[in-house]
Amino acid sequence: MNELVFIGLGLNDEKGISVKGLEETKSADSVFMELYTSLMPDFNLQRFEALCDKKIKLISRHELEEENGAVILEAAKKGKVAFLVPGDPFIATTHVTLRVDAEKNGIKTRIIHGTSIISAIVSLSGLHNYKFGKTVTVPFPENFSETPYNVIAQNKQLWLHTLCLLDLKAIEKQFLGINQAIAMLLEMEKKKKQNVITLDTPAVGIARAGSDRPTLKADFLKDLGSFDFGEPPYSLIFPGELHFMEVDSLIAFAGAPASFKRLAK
Amino acid sequence: MNELVFIGLGLNDEKGISVKGLEETKSADSVFMELYTSLMPDFNLQRFEALCDKKIKLISRHELEEENGAVILEAAKKGKVAFLVPGDPFIATTHVTLRVDAEKNGIKTRIIHGTSIISAIVSLSGLHNYKFGKTVTVPFPENFSETPYNVIAQNKQLWLHTLCLLDLKAIEKQFLGINQAIAMLLEMEKKKKQNVITLDTPAVGIARAGSDRPTLKADFLKDLGSFDFGEPPYSLIFPGELHFMEVDSLIAFAGAPASFKRLAK
Repeated sequence: MNELVFIGLGLNDEKGISVKGLEETKSADSVFMELYTSLMPDFNLQRFEALCDKKIKLISRHELEEENGAVILEAAKKGKVAFLVPGDPFIATTHVTLRVDAEKNGIKTRIIHGTSIISAIVSLSGLHNYKFGKTVTVPFPENFSETPYNVIAQNKQLWLHTLCLLDLKAIEKQFLGINQAIAMLLEMEKKKKQNVITLDTPAVGIARAGSDRPTLKADFLKDLGSFDFGEPPYSLIFPGELHFMEVDSLIAFAGAPASFKRLAK
Repeated sequence: MNELVFIGLGLNDEKGISVKGLEETKSADSVFMELYTSLMPDFNLQRFEALCDKKIKLISRHELEEENGAVILEAAKKGKVAFLVPGDPFIATTHVTLRVDAEKNGIKTRIIHGTSIISAIVSLSGLHNYKFGKTVTVPFPENFSETPYNVIAQNKQLWLHTLCLLDLKAIEKQFLGINQAIAMLLEMEKKKKQNVITLDTPAVGIARAGSDRPTLKADFLKDLGSFDFGEPPYSLIFPGELHFMEVDSLIAFAGAPASFKRLAK
């Protein structure tokens, strides 16, 4: 049967994929993978090939975005194709186009979901899922704009938390650091003067979510700005109003200072 | 080594768990599981026990919330305990207390993440993750309040999508239906009169996300209100402003009528 199955690799390494995702990979006629939309720090392609007993074709950004994934669509006209993507396959919006194109070409598509940073940061931090507002990506300095600041400001006004994903170029091994993101947001405060991001603003930095050694640190920006988070990938949360259970969690799991207690509502 | 490992079961069935989660389960001294915070429609406990070669102790809401998970904490003082939870372990906030209690008792905790409905509905619908605002649960009629209506209204004002999780009692097999949720929200409109939820409002219903046969249907409420979504569990999305790519996705993957094209911004 010809079909295109989008399979989430989940987080961190070869074993982040679901049992079902691994089975579907094993039974595919061709297997493609991209590793540029996100960094899986402990992922090893050879180990994964051994795990699923398949030869994997790595797909570049160029092949997907400039050539519209033609090589994948061609293969899917002939048999069952597995396309493996870090995290949950469509959290990065990049691949939606390929799925639409496939369906327009009469190729059936299915999704085997994977673990996403979106839920992992909620679990790791102990912050409450229903208190998160809009998510935003903080871009590299050359593309920096007012958007991240404005999203954090808007969420705060509504007492909501903001998840900031920090930009990366996984293949080129370039990662926007947590300290760098904080510095840029503090710089934006000087321009906007809305008292949203100051040295006394609390935040939570997260590195390597989904790995065996995630680093979480909650603190005020004056101290968080110089904290060493180690290796990427990175996320940053700006809390809105904090429930006392959330403060307890940040103290227990993210090394928040005791002074966080006064933030509890 | 004594520790408490929270492991996400992911969605739908025994094979929604990650490869790593299954390995950690196999190497645990005791394995507990709860199946009341969410419904995994194709999950079979005997099949899962065979998959991980372990005897599983099912934990009730009473044991966790009234007895504070004492039976789990006791076991974790003696060895490695795996506690298996549908989805990603802390998307339902219920289990955060157990993790805080464990750490206070000197028991190390770890998390093996699982696929969550939070990212699955984004992947399935093709809607863009960064355009979702606050998530809300629509409760059963006896607990219905203005909250869901207000959250949808607030998100819409900011042009953002709203994910509505529909309440359930998994053990008692009671599930708030999509049609029922729509009817209650239309009823609330009569009271609030803010023109937020009308018969001409577009929405996307999703049933059995993560299964082999998810049902998605995008339509205006006058038609969506009578659509048959089949078996639970259910979610409902109220879109804010729609990008033309999102409209394309809803037409391709969620059977939206062609008239959705005029919603594209």
